[in-house]
Amino acid sequence: MKKLAASLVISSLAASAGEAQERPAGRIAPPDVYVVAPGLGDYTDELLFGDVWLRDELKPRDRSIVTVSALIASGRIAQVGGHVGRALDNGVIPSEIGEIITHLAFYSGWPNAISAVNATKEVFDKRGIEPVAAEAGQPLELDPASEAARAASVDTSTGPVVPGLAEYTNRVLFGELWRRPQLSARDRSLVTIAGLIATGKAEQLPFHLSRGMDNGLTRTEVAEVPTHLAYYAGWPNAMSAVPVLRGVFEARKA
Amino acid sequence: MKKLAASLVISSLAASAGEAQERPAGRIAPPDVYVVAPGLGDYTDELLFGDVWLRDELKPRDRSIVTVSALIASGRIAQVGGHVGRALDNGVIPSEIGEIITHLAFYSGWPNAISAVNATKEVFDKRGIEPVAAEAGQPLELDPASEAARAASVDTSTGPVVPGLAEYTNRVLFGELWRRPQLSARDRSLVTIAGLIATGKAEQLPFHLSRGMDNGLTRTEVAEVPTHLAYYAGWPNAMSAVPVLRGVFEARKA
Amino acid sequence: MKKLAASLVISSLAASAGEAQERPAGRIAPPDVYVVAPGLGDYTDELLFGDVWLRDELKPRDRSIVTVSALIASGRIAQVGGHVGRALDNGVIPSEIGEIITHLAFYSGWPNAISAVNATKEVFDKRGIEPVAAEAGQPLELDPASEAARAASVDTSTGPVVPGLAEYTNRVLFGELWRRPQLSARDRSLVTIAGLIATGKAEQLPFHLSRGMDNGLTRTEVAEVPTHLAYYAGWPNAMSAVPVLRGVFEARKA
Repeated sequence: MKKLAASLVISSLAASAGEAQERPAGRIAPPDVYVVAPGLGDYTDELLFGDVWLRDELKPRDRSIVTVSALIASGRIAQVGGHVGRALDNGVIPSEIGEIITHLAFYSGWPNAISAVNATKEVFDKRGIEPVAAEAGQPLELDPASEAARAASVDTSTGPVVPGLAEYTNRVLFGELWRRPQLSARDRSLVTIAGLIATGKAEQLPFHLSRGMDNGLTRTEVAEVPTHLAYYAGWPNAMSAVPVLRGVFEARKA
Repeated sequence: MKKLAASLVISSLAASAGEAQERPAGRIAPPDVYVVAPGLGDYTDELLFGDVWLRDELKPRDRSIVTVSALIASGRIAQVGGHVGRALDNGVIPSEIGEIITHLAFYSGWPNAISAVNATKEVFDKRGIEPVAAEAGQPLELDPASEAARAASVDTSTGPVVPGLAEYTNRVLFGELWRRPQLSARDRSLVTIAGLIATGKAEQLPFHLSRGMDNGLTRTEVAEVPTHLAYYAGWPNAMSAVPVLRGVFEARKA
Repeated sequence: MKKLAASLVISSLAASAGEAQERPAGRIAPPDVYVVAPGLGDYTDELLFGDVWLRDELKPRDRSIVTVSALIASGRIAQVGGHVGRALDNGVIPSEIGEIITHLAFYSGWPNAISAVNATKEVFDKRGIEPVAAEAGQPLELDPASEAARAASVDTSTGPVVPGLAEYTNRVLFGELWRRPQLSARDRSLVTIAGLIATGKAEQLPFHLSRGMDNGLTRTEVAEVPTHLAYYAGWPNAMSAVPVLRGVFEARKA
């Protein structure tokens, strides 16, 4: 079963990279990896794509959302195109890709988002994907009680010190962005959590882990994010997330 | 008034990007943004350039210094050229651009600075800007009392552990770099603060916020830096700066 | 003596960049640096290459390992090729370069490692370097007692929260990667410490500083890493490492 999944993964990725002929059967790592760092080649094919990506704890679509989000948030633009292709193969639709980028403009800055647009546009062009439609229906409803508590906290703690940031946080970030229907609240949480872990931002992580579990992420899925991101953002960022997850899991159990 | 300022901003940026014809009137966002992530296109034109950049709390020249510094410090080199052009339009002179890069070589490492040189050189060439003159007059005087206290603190805390770093800090970083007359002390503080916030370095921020206010930055200007940088370095880095600003503002009030 | 070393450094770097003719004698900084930021040009030639690289506290081979590791870990890929060439000149052999990249795939994520492979492959091609051999003898022995303690700590602290990450940490990261003979344990520690300091990851630094000194790094060498990295990852990352080093030095003295 895992073997079949692996070969599907391999063929789709090889095809999307357009380099199927250059690689021996079953290999995803680019040939140069085996020339310069053969150990990395083996780990790429046997461990990363032959094991990590096939784990049941997170669906392929979610792994793609986590990976693309980590790449954009940490500015690893050279890998965005390949993984946007993979995300499309794994069921993330074009308007969701565009909205992940929009979301991460706020959570990791405009420069990363604009660079991600350029990398994504090339993939869309190659695949003949139409421009994403600008409109997508009614804004989502956020839970009024927790939204009121959140806004009050920003007004109290951020407002008196950095008033502009407080205002944009309440009016735009939560008042508009999180309500846009192009991406579900659950997926926005996954994008945000992946971005925070990949860039080592521990301060905002407890709030977004709780919010993500309120939005439908399971504990198993949440715990798999740092496992997956150890490979895409490095062990230190993954390990630093562990005590934060422990704290949130314990607080929600109590 | 804001409308006029906006249209000036738009025309200068469109011209500097050399793509005026491809964009509908009034748009700064590259056309591909609307294709891939139309929400991001709207936020770019209506929110970022139509609102944030026009706020009175920080002058356009200062916003450009903050933006260019954040881009260089966080290694977002793909956007440096465009914002160097914008900084020149907003009144930052070429020798100041060069000195911002020199300053950030120390505050964010040589690799970012060298990459920024290459991006800037292209802008200088396109605009026919002459090579920056090597000499620029007498070194600035730093306040002797606070400089002696600073140096003593480095000797005591860093000296016994990492002697090389202590020596370079006192002899070169503060003994030379901060005294170079190519950039005012106030602007160096703005560059440093923007770089620290953009890269999430909270440890050094209290010292540089205080120093910056001693160097002439107002509380309003300082508070606008994380507001502006929410858009260029992401919300988490901006929000993490808030408690640090609060601490410094309260300490200086007392 | 220093003068001779400096001129060797200069000629090898100039040659490896293939731009010897464009630069005045004795200059390593690319000519554009003097055009855009003449102060940075002087600091590059007189301070960075004329002083820092010549300090006795760390050998040129170690400085190259530290520099290449910092560049890869922080994603400063534009500078990787030049410093891989320099590392080869300083005695790091090709299989060690490949293994530094493999090691940093785990410590800073696959995207940085894959980008480093591409930059390194170009250098190998230019120099006619053969593909690195896949096999390299028996796995290294790690000290069984400290390895058992480390694994138990991961099982206890990480296992119940993020089980996948705990398993990969014990089975692959320490069970395989650290035992690969392509790079000595001492050099792996140097790579890891440089990567952690360059990316501002303080949490994992105490463990790896201790491990590095157990693996043969001297206190003088360890203290020179942040001194060197002030120039390659910026002063804030270097200064943030100082209290961590102090804590480890004091704990080992007791």
